[in-house]
Amino acid sequence: MSEPSPVRAAVMGAGSWGTAFAKVLIDAGTPTVLWARRPELAERINRLGRNTDYLSEIELPSSLHVTADPGEALQEADFVFFALPSQQMRAHLELWTDKLPAEAMLISLMKGIETGTAMRMSEVMAELTGAGPSRIGAVSGPNLAHEIAGEQPAATVVACADEEACLRLQAVCANGYMRPYTNRDVIGCELGGAVKNIIAILVGMAEGMGFGDNTRASIITRGLVETTRLGVALGADATTFSGLAGLGDLIATCASPQSRNRTFGEQLGRGHKPQDVLGDLGQVVEGVATSSAVMELAGRVGVDMPIAEHVVQAVSGEMEPAEVLRSLMSRRRKSEQPTG
Amino acid sequence: MSEPSPVRAAVMGAGSWGTAFAKVLIDAGTPTVLWARRPELAERINRLGRNTDYLSEIELPSSLHVTADPGEALQEADFVFFALPSQQMRAHLELWTDKLPAEAMLISLMKGIETGTAMRMSEVMAELTGAGPSRIGAVSGPNLAHEIAGEQPAATVVACADEEACLRLQAVCANGYMRPYTNRDVIGCELGGAVKNIIAILVGMAEGMGFGDNTRASIITRGLVETTRLGVALGADATTFSGLAGLGDLIATCASPQSRNRTFGEQLGRGHKPQDVLGDLGQVVEGVATSSAVMELAGRVGVDMPIAEHVVQAVSGEMEPAEVLRSLMSRRRKSEQPTG
Repeated sequence: MSEPSPVRAAVMGAGSWGTAFAKVLIDAGTPTVLWARRPELAERINRLGRNTDYLSEIELPSSLHVTADPGEALQEADFVFFALPSQQMRAHLELWTDKLPAEAMLISLMKGIETGTAMRMSEVMAELTGAGPSRIGAVSGPNLAHEIAGEQPAATVVACADEEACLRLQAVCANGYMRPYTNRDVIGCELGGAVKNIIAILVGMAEGMGFGDNTRASIITRGLVETTRLGVALGADATTFSGLAGLGDLIATCASPQSRNRTFGEQLGRGHKPQDVLGDLGQVVEGVATSSAVMELAGRVGVDMPIAEHVVQAVSGEMEPAEVLRSLMSRRRKSEQPTG
Repeated sequence: MSEPSPVRAAVMGAGSWGTAFAKVLIDAGTPTVLWARRPELAERINRLGRNTDYLSEIELPSSLHVTADPGEALQEADFVFFALPSQQMRAHLELWTDKLPAEAMLISLMKGIETGTAMRMSEVMAELTGAGPSRIGAVSGPNLAHEIAGEQPAATVVACADEEACLRLQAVCANGYMRPYTNRDVIGCELGGAVKNIIAILVGMAEGMGFGDNTRASIITRGLVETTRLGVALGADATTFSGLAGLGDLIATCASPQSRNRTFGEQLGRGHKPQDVLGDLGQVVEGVATSSAVMELAGRVGVDMPIAEHVVQAVSGEMEPAEVLRSLMSRRRKSEQPTG
């Protein structure tokens, strides 16, 4: 008998997280192809063994092959991971549906909600491909790309509604520095990742105004409470938000100078105008578009989300950062357990 | 009719948190006396309007009176707050029981478990004074003393099993920068505060070894999961641990260079011996004594606490920091929802 051929993975998107995750897969023994949008970036990574645009300090595994041809990347893939800006997912996936192997599992590495539709990335994937729940997954957790690429020990969540598929997904990405925990709650994992970018903006604002660790901890905690409230109303499991894809990711993002969302907020807190900061950053700030999509979701299910709401107002320039903090602090005195 | 006389508070212990909390009370309009163990410190604070030993940069309210006489401090107090090293609480309180006003509410500001008995501070207070649940409370949350004293916006939890008493407690400490949330779960609030010091030691160790934000976030998240598991087994409400006294306090402590527990762990991570570091710090590291008390509690209710257990081994010198991290990372692959 011949050995079964190993499962293969494709990672679609060669930003810092897509690149780092391709390394995670290879280090877990999974042959992986990385798709880059720009042919010149694909060629350069292949030639230098480094992603000079996003992770220049990291030597990538020699077996990593990068291509700008989506057909080549997707061919024979058993697991297809998507790492694109959330608002561009639909447009890309529409071009790729006929190239996806019929049985491939589709996994989002993204952290955003589509504006207009207020759909999670897994919903976009399911709608465009017709894949059922056992073929749809998400990976989310406290995973700053530079640290993972540096092989620092980290944990993450691999989510799929189907337990068997979830275990297979766990197996393709577990290695000596990446410890994946399974979770069947895809909704919770995706919402945790999306809403944390909004909370990170407010944390950044508070820091830009000179506030310290208590204020940050209070914002994170109350932010997670409202995220959980939204998630439960949308069918997620409350415990997911206390886990790696909720709390874990939120803490890592809010602590990191690498987070674009936190950095964006910090600039607002220092008195810069939102549109100027976005122009200067020149990169996608997921939390900006996602904040209005999240308020749309919250409105549909009637959930109160004071932090997200205040961030929307700060981002739109309707409210000054100092006023945002004052307004949040001066709300009516409350119990931690509203029903208690 | 004459106006009702205002409620009065005493804060027993003039370390950084006791002093900052006395300021919180006065800024909330509550006349407050602060007790300091050393007469020379009491005299100096009264004379200079500053606690030169612990909060030298902060100008204290002029109406704050400091005394080294416990009888003077406790006289006519309606609310007595305790801010002592946890392992010294019993010895002090034994001397004070006959001076406590019969109806006074007794509130712990402390974050530790008594070694030997494995009792929470509220249990020590109840045992020694015979006070019932409606007279016993705790305040806990993301409250770094220096930031609170600097009037940075923060939230906290005021806990008491009796709702009316809890609302009164909320009223005496709510002010423009301190936002207290009520919670009836005293057990959860106390355990959250105690176990976070243990987790902070491990976070410090990982930082001392050069690991970054992902590792920290993973330890915090998994640490909170095991804290919640212990709490629920001991009768606490799981949601308390997702709140300010659980998560909030944990994040603030683990982020802060002011935390002695985190600093202690950091020195271990850099290769220093536990006993040498404790000698150099010359201050109480609550998490050291509390870690063995917590393992005692966990053993009683049969709860698995890998992080606390590893910290006990690191603190006792039985296991090297690098081995602690390796051992925690290489545990069997798991689900986030063990019952899922």
